[in-house]
Amino acid sequence: MIRALIFGATGYTGIELMRILWSHPQVAVTGGSSRNWEGKRVSEVFPFVDAKRDFVLRSMEDLKLNPDADVAFMALPHGQAAGVIRPVLEAGLKIIDLSADCRLRDPKAYEEWYGAHCDPDLMQRAVYGLPELHREEIRQADLVANPGCYPTSVILGLAPLVNLAQVDTSKPVVDSKSGISGAGRGGKLNTSFCEAGEGFKPYSVIGHRHISEMEQELTVLSDEPVRVRFTPHLIPISRGIVSTMYLPLKASITAEELRQAYINYYRLEPFIRVLPSGVFPDTARVRGSNQCHLAVELDERTGVVVAMAAIDNLVKGASGAAVQNMNIMVGVEETAGLEGLPLFP
Amino acid sequence: MIRALIFGATGYTGIELMRILWSHPQVAVTGGSSRNWEGKRVSEVFPFVDAKRDFVLRSMEDLKLNPDADVAFMALPHGQAAGVIRPVLEAGLKIIDLSADCRLRDPKAYEEWYGAHCDPDLMQRAVYGLPELHREEIRQADLVANPGCYPTSVILGLAPLVNLAQVDTSKPVVDSKSGISGAGRGGKLNTSFCEAGEGFKPYSVIGHRHISEMEQELTVLSDEPVRVRFTPHLIPISRGIVSTMYLPLKASITAEELRQAYINYYRLEPFIRVLPSGVFPDTARVRGSNQCHLAVELDERTGVVVAMAAIDNLVKGASGAAVQNMNIMVGVEETAGLEGLPLFP
Amino acid sequence: MIRALIFGATGYTGIELMRILWSHPQVAVTGGSSRNWEGKRVSEVFPFVDAKRDFVLRSMEDLKLNPDADVAFMALPHGQAAGVIRPVLEAGLKIIDLSADCRLRDPKAYEEWYGAHCDPDLMQRAVYGLPELHREEIRQADLVANPGCYPTSVILGLAPLVNLAQVDTSKPVVDSKSGISGAGRGGKLNTSFCEAGEGFKPYSVIGHRHISEMEQELTVLSDEPVRVRFTPHLIPISRGIVSTMYLPLKASITAEELRQAYINYYRLEPFIRVLPSGVFPDTARVRGSNQCHLAVELDERTGVVVAMAAIDNLVKGASGAAVQNMNIMVGVEETAGLEGLPLFP
Amino acid sequence: MIRALIFGATGYTGIELMRILWSHPQVAVTGGSSRNWEGKRVSEVFPFVDAKRDFVLRSMEDLKLNPDADVAFMALPHGQAAGVIRPVLEAGLKIIDLSADCRLRDPKAYEEWYGAHCDPDLMQRAVYGLPELHREEIRQADLVANPGCYPTSVILGLAPLVNLAQVDTSKPVVDSKSGISGAGRGGKLNTSFCEAGEGFKPYSVIGHRHISEMEQELTVLSDEPVRVRFTPHLIPISRGIVSTMYLPLKASITAEELRQAYINYYRLEPFIRVLPSGVFPDTARVRGSNQCHLAVELDERTGVVVAMAAIDNLVKGASGAAVQNMNIMVGVEETAGLEGLPLFP
Repeated sequence: MIRALIFGATGYTGIELMRILWSHPQVAVTGGSSRNWEGKRVSEVFPFVDAKRDFVLRSMEDLKLNPDADVAFMALPHGQAAGVIRPVLEAGLKIIDLSADCRLRDPKAYEEWYGAHCDPDLMQRAVYGLPELHREEIRQADLVANPGCYPTSVILGLAPLVNLAQVDTSKPVVDSKSGISGAGRGGKLNTSFCEAGEGFKPYSVIGHRHISEMEQELTVLSDEPVRVRFTPHLIPISRGIVSTMYLPLKASITAEELRQAYINYYRLEPFIRVLPSGVFPDTARVRGSNQCHLAVELDERTGVVVAMAAIDNLVKGASGAAVQNMNIMVGVEETAGLEGLPLFP
Repeated sequence: MIRALIFGATGYTGIELMRILWSHPQVAVTGGSSRNWEGKRVSEVFPFVDAKRDFVLRSMEDLKLNPDADVAFMALPHGQAAGVIRPVLEAGLKIIDLSADCRLRDPKAYEEWYGAHCDPDLMQRAVYGLPELHREEIRQADLVANPGCYPTSVILGLAPLVNLAQVDTSKPVVDSKSGISGAGRGGKLNTSFCEAGEGFKPYSVIGHRHISEMEQELTVLSDEPVRVRFTPHLIPISRGIVSTMYLPLKASITAEELRQAYINYYRLEPFIRVLPSGVFPDTARVRGSNQCHLAVELDERTGVVVAMAAIDNLVKGASGAAVQNMNIMVGVEETAGLEGLPLFP
Repeated sequence: MIRALIFGATGYTGIELMRILWSHPQVAVTGGSSRNWEGKRVSEVFPFVDAKRDFVLRSMEDLKLNPDADVAFMALPHGQAAGVIRPVLEAGLKIIDLSADCRLRDPKAYEEWYGAHCDPDLMQRAVYGLPELHREEIRQADLVANPGCYPTSVILGLAPLVNLAQVDTSKPVVDSKSGISGAGRGGKLNTSFCEAGEGFKPYSVIGHRHISEMEQELTVLSDEPVRVRFTPHLIPISRGIVSTMYLPLKASITAEELRQAYINYYRLEPFIRVLPSGVFPDTARVRGSNQCHLAVELDERTGVVVAMAAIDNLVKGASGAAVQNMNIMVGVEETAGLEGLPLFP
Repeated sequence: MIRALIFGATGYTGIELMRILWSHPQVAVTGGSSRNWEGKRVSEVFPFVDAKRDFVLRSMEDLKLNPDADVAFMALPHGQAAGVIRPVLEAGLKIIDLSADCRLRDPKAYEEWYGAHCDPDLMQRAVYGLPELHREEIRQADLVANPGCYPTSVILGLAPLVNLAQVDTSKPVVDSKSGISGAGRGGKLNTSFCEAGEGFKPYSVIGHRHISEMEQELTVLSDEPVRVRFTPHLIPISRGIVSTMYLPLKASITAEELRQAYINYYRLEPFIRVLPSGVFPDTARVRGSNQCHLAVELDERTGVVVAMAAIDNLVKGASGAAVQNMNIMVGVEETAGLEGLPLFP
């Protein structure tokens, strides 16, 4: 059995890692940290956890100093993960970092979007963990930066268009919508049921940090500078992201040719579904699964290509992708533990 | 007292008309029709309706032939309203038509977007009922076409930009999101709680009918042809629309100048709120009220103006606007019956 | 105009008081306090508030010392209200206290359920503000204790049974369910969207404080000691309470006789609706209104009477009832400002 | 591999069977019927279904005549299942019937609660499929009647009390609340998002059919006639049931003794969790899992025992229990395919 640690085990991505790994045939979660529940058993925090696989939550500091396992997941806020990664790497573990701390290649970009970084060399060492783009590098890596939830939906949704001569992908307009778990686990007024339920609104309209990842990856893909116009919105659901993306046509192409480009691009990908024409991505159809649903349409009246993507932000947008990365890194079947159907309804 | 009839009194816009008019100091609802509850009292359908103002629901046919009142609201599906309007007009009533049947000036456009029209002359006679743009014509009219819910949010959200030299308003990208009451009242699988709740998805991605209204009004406003790229999405809430709109900059302008353009444009409007910088429109803050909340931002990195609007689709997007139109048409205070604050939370 | 102050203007009952009073023809809100937004204008907190009626929020201390108005609403947590009431009373204002601080007649009971009270004499001076039971005393009072949300639904739901010889009302089993706004406005993990949404659960199963009010009032009504077995549950909606109540039959009676007892008991009450047989109280049909919907059924198989009540916890369960009490106290029409229909859907 | 058929594969219990069996190591779903989607592939109805395990949906008639498999699940409405079971049994398949058609032992009771039965002998042949009570009989059976969702929560919640001398279990008051998927998949006005969302209400207050099952099983367990006072309510969530149950004390016992009785009773049960004192069952903590969470409290003030149970109505209340029964019937590990943690949040 592969032994896995979860730093930050009681946040939403931490508990989702446990849910997924629980059903994984080759992994056992052997330890985890929690700031708020240090010293308690997992089952005291989540009564649904079984006694058989229960364990006592430790402090981050303690776990960092005694990381006796094969792999570690960093389900920590940005800034915090950077301080933990090096000692755990040096203890010989492979690391999947779910924070933003290793996603950017350019330390200056990190500083601009996030502020100071306590261990900037990590950024060079890490691989951006989107298997659909970087599978082979992930296989070699000991440190993988798990992508952000919004960037996952946007990069997967745009990648097949990037090398089409007919579509201008240099300045996409991206209108994204996310369920509330994306804001993390905690008691804040703006994510309380009465303030966020029955509402819908944009937020961080200018300068959301995830833009940096999208632009880094799309620029590499397309070999020209990409600038993303990005607006996130909050949906009153727990899980799910839909990104709707708009790109101008440069030359004539048909809707069906666009769809075929998606099908071809993702032909071998186990978690991507290109939907039939006229069917559109719906968070309710990916909830709880590692799938990404894609659709593309051509608006001939305005000369605009509309690409759409849906994922569960906690699965393909975080913990599911992290397990997919781990599977690749340790050499087990890439889909192990991740084949479950969505929970519908 | 002004006596009002409601054709289609038991759909969502019909019952919302009753809710608003109930609190209106100068109007009494004296009759209404219902296909499904003909012959029943309103209070049998809606137990919250008071005995004092209760009445027996009639058939549309019967109400059409005996429209003894001062004004009539057509809260009917498109296609149905067109067949009822003329006899009621001829009986001397002023009409506010909430259907799409009188919104377009060009009969050919109607045919293209909606199909055959049984009384196309009505389209010439009607005034497009957006008071912020057409108040004086509404005052003179006996037939007002109440705008669609999406177009209300989009036209109000874009109008202040149309005559700014710095912004290209000829091809806006419009990403709209609506609560489920916009789909009308009825038992359909795709709007059932289990299929639509906890979900979020685009629909009618190509060719939604409301595009025709948006383009008609924006073209008149800007005096050049406007083509709208429009994507509607379904939010799992009952009420509310947010439209997020993207337009390229043509020349330099500041975010604050953009905001001032909105403030100036709507300076005298009783129902429009231009939000402070950094605050964004939220359906939860307009729910149940006739307000429209607007915000505008400038993304200097990409040279894109982002305009945002929120309304309650059943109030400012339908029945509230209809009462506002009626107030103007019959010469009472424009805000009468419409000053209630939103229901928050 | 009657001038009203709101202590605690930015909590859910405070903002709901503003919403209701805004539409009240004889009242102007002339001031209010807020701990979190002291010094800001109301419109900065709630962007939907109109400039015309905007005002600067003050500290509780400041408002207490300069309460220049006719009436004051205490929309404060229990414990806090008790310290403010006396100086405001002495300044000549009539007070409606929405906290629990004046609801119990017996200081010992208060201490037992809530802890120490800083001004226990207030408990003797106050009238329990359920107009359906105590209208005449309220008319004479200068201090009215607005009932708790759960007790309102329970007392109104049981009162007509109390004097029926056939029903044993001495030990009702009360199973109540409340929307989340009942927990107040604030950022807590257990009322966050992701923790409370899509969930449903009992809480405070033993010893919820509202039992004390229920027992006090039902004991007075029935002239024998009443003990309530009470379980509250949390519903993932913002507003609304349903209480389902079970009482054993002592002698034979028909379902229709039970219903008639309700109709007779509330014959003159403007806000109570006894539903037709087979129709049951639904929070969605009272949302935003001051109505209380009641139903009663007889289960002959088990010899149990089932009484059901629905209210909006923020209106008839708090701020609407407070305005109703104010109307009675100052001598205006009891229904003024409160006749709006529920917001449906 | 065990080959399984699903009659009624596109309803909520049908698709949930597919979700669970998809992850089952020893079962393959090899066919299914659908009235609405006959002739289509499963993946056309549910785009998340993988091509590898896709199949063409057949008519019920066709599947009944050619049931080439080892086991069959009847995810059909009551009345329909009864007409299909015999030929499938005679073809040698073991059957788990999720309808109500085989749950009652007494044909007269069936007729009274449900109407005429087309094959009443099946009722004698079937075993009531609650493994916690009838594991050994299920192991021998070729026809298992899967329990109703409400009865599962109620019987599991009351069973440990039945043989306690201190508690009167002969006339429990049962107040249950269910998510909307319990009403089945279909487009009906009363389960549409706008009518059921943001609402909460009782329904079928007198004479819900599930009473018959509860009384049958509790009567057998307790060896004396049990009469259940049962009220179901609708919660605006997709999945989940909470039952709150009230029983009078006959003699003195402590809360901790009650809790120990639950722990002892279910000591060996893999899917039952008796919660720590002060923690209460929450639908959000069982969602998507086969777990049943139980709690019990003693209200000494009123002499009432309060038992509480939560399940996911589509899993432990339907399809999960059906797979658990199948596992027992075919002799594989009882927990196979059912160990997944709940989806939280």
